[in-house]
Amino acid sequence: MSPETAQMSGLYEPQLTTLTREECLELLRGAVVGRIGYVADGRAIIIPVNFALLDGDIVFCTAKGSKLSWLSLRGHVAFEADESRLADHEGWSVLIQGVAREVTHPEELAVLRRGPLHSWLRSSHEHWVRISIEAMSGRALHRAPLTDRITRA
Amino acid sequence: MSPETAQMSGLYEPQLTTLTREECLELLRGAVVGRIGYVADGRAIIIPVNFALLDGDIVFCTAKGSKLSWLSLRGHVAFEADESRLADHEGWSVLIQGVAREVTHPEELAVLRRGPLHSWLRSSHEHWVRISIEAMSGRALHRAPLTDRITRA
Repeated sequence: MSPETAQMSGLYEPQLTTLTREECLELLRGAVVGRIGYVADGRAIIIPVNFALLDGDIVFCTAKGSKLSWLSLRGHVAFEADESRLADHEGWSVLIQGVAREVTHPEELAVLRRGPLHSWLRSSHEHWVRISIEAMSGRALHRAPLTDRITRA
Repeated sequence: MSPETAQMSGLYEPQLTTLTREECLELLRGAVVGRIGYVADGRAIIIPVNFALLDGDIVFCTAKGSKLSWLSLRGHVAFEADESRLADHEGWSVLIQGVAREVTHPEELAVLRRGPLHSWLRSSHEHWVRISIEAMSGRALHRAPLTDRITRA
């Protein structure tokens, strides 16, 4: 059975693939919105940020406020990005554990400000946060034709 | 200046709105993918799930595995859903704190299995998790014309 026939018959099944580090980075390069996870008072907090990948680090820009208050308390954060094609029940996700720090060095700040990333909510009190990746894993879910199974039957 | 003129001139500025509880629930009803956040070994973990809203609770279905291992340890979880219109730099996000439990009662399971939600990755060992919402907040970012400011100037 050809993939085309399988598609027409709806004979597809979901397949979960583990992504390589390079595949994860490639997907992150094409993504814009991710989520930071951190622990406050023993509970997990998730906050969406728009981000960029810079020299292998996650970088985001935020106005001063609650998002940054955890930085002085604990640098360990989670970061997640995903994308879903709802109609196909397909998608990918990348999960990261890393260490976050606020960027304060003037030269490093100048490089970031020249980059393409800006907080969607403009602010005169912007802060830049950089997450160095300690561990990264990614998964992709896609629908594959049942060709093999049918061939074997 | 009319909103049309402001749009043509690009004279828009981002505005952040706090969403009401009903607005949050309405947005969650239209969303499909969210993220669970929990604490393991003192660190935050974020995992994407496809979910549904059922009687005011977040419900998701998962195959047995790491996603469920935290349930016996700690019921407190974070849940987040968001949607972004990249071209417009607009979007919304809903952040939830809640208590998760695995659904084991046969009648409750039967109701869930009759519903529209299924894990995208089919499994004969599906588990259903239900999060009762303890706290919920939502924000929307949209671009508004600079009409008012210009009128006042």
